[in-house]
Amino acid sequence: MNLPKKTVQRLSRYRRLLVKYKYITEPYIYSHDLARLLNLNPVQVRRDLMLIGSSGNHRKGYNVNELNKLIGETIDSDEPQMIGIVGAGRLGQAILNYVSGEEINLNVAAIFDIDSQKIGKEFSGVKCYDISQLSEIIKDKNITIGVIAIPSEFTTSIASILLNSGIEGILNFTSVHLDLPKSIYLKEFDIITTLEEMAYFVKCE
Amino acid sequence: MNLPKKTVQRLSRYRRLLVKYKYITEPYIYSHDLARLLNLNPVQVRRDLMLIGSSGNHRKGYNVNELNKLIGETIDSDEPQMIGIVGAGRLGQAILNYVSGEEINLNVAAIFDIDSQKIGKEFSGVKCYDISQLSEIIKDKNITIGVIAIPSEFTTSIASILLNSGIEGILNFTSVHLDLPKSIYLKEFDIITTLEEMAYFVKCE
Repeated sequence: MNLPKKTVQRLSRYRRLLVKYKYITEPYIYSHDLARLLNLNPVQVRRDLMLIGSSGNHRKGYNVNELNKLIGETIDSDEPQMIGIVGAGRLGQAILNYVSGEEINLNVAAIFDIDSQKIGKEFSGVKCYDISQLSEIIKDKNITIGVIAIPSEFTTSIASILLNSGIEGILNFTSVHLDLPKSIYLKEFDIITTLEEMAYFVKCE
Repeated sequence: MNLPKKTVQRLSRYRRLLVKYKYITEPYIYSHDLARLLNLNPVQVRRDLMLIGSSGNHRKGYNVNELNKLIGETIDSDEPQMIGIVGAGRLGQAILNYVSGEEINLNVAAIFDIDSQKIGKEFSGVKCYDISQLSEIIKDKNITIGVIAIPSEFTTSIASILLNSGIEGILNFTSVHLDLPKSIYLKEFDIITTLEEMAYFVKCE
């Protein structure tokens, strides 16, 4: 059974908090503390954790290590999934840093660019490849998730290459909307459009 | 009358494409070309443009300059809206670069950090201030939109300061969900959670 999208998102957030919590404080956490630290409703938190089979201890709360492990068993794959980032500009590098900095079951296996100054170099320990090697490296390194962080005009052609190379999920940061087969898990976030949308509704208030 | 959110998003995308188109090719563009370049349905494009009062010329298509102007009159404020970016790390700088690189009615007025190495410096021509000056600078520079690109643990306190300083829109890139008054236009995007959600559904396929 697939969990609802919003539940998966919250489980991901719980874990990220727990990983930090683990190092700094108690072996147990109360659902209301978890809720407070993430600005969520405690009832919601308890419901989510119940759903994955954890009911916690009435007096002590939830065991942080156990909960961590349980969330991992629920949302992670057996092997870490591999990410390929297309575009080694500031955004691509920012994403790479975010992923490298977290204890998660995701690895950035490669980053791609057209800039010869960047190709062959390492960013946060990840090698930058020529974009012409995209298909080859995706297959070689078993990359399942592609992140598109390049100028918009190349979005469609890069997406086709990703698709033809067997990618299963695409995170698109450009302004060009992708219309992909249902079998590809697509998320899109266009920074400028988001800011312009915000500006419009702020103006209309 | 407020336009639907999705329409505003598409208008923003049309304009971004038109601005580039303006310099490179013809003074006119067909709705089906606009649709193709953005991977949208041409009927959708014509409906959106009709909604803002542009029906185009049957033979020549839409006049690029006029359409540009019309989109601006529809979605822009009279004065450029001011953005404040909290966090001058890679993500904050990436966003700053995106905004500076586009011909849009938004300006980044200030960027904020706690790192004394960054404070006082300029990034893409925008001054970096100490985060303790957040409230003061927001008021001084008439900042209406705040972008939160900092470690999650500071999200809630930064959001309170933004709120108390009269900000009207917040774009939150951290893993801590914000629960704000309805009068604040909030958008949230958590990169790690998005990737973990993708990994989960890719695994479940």
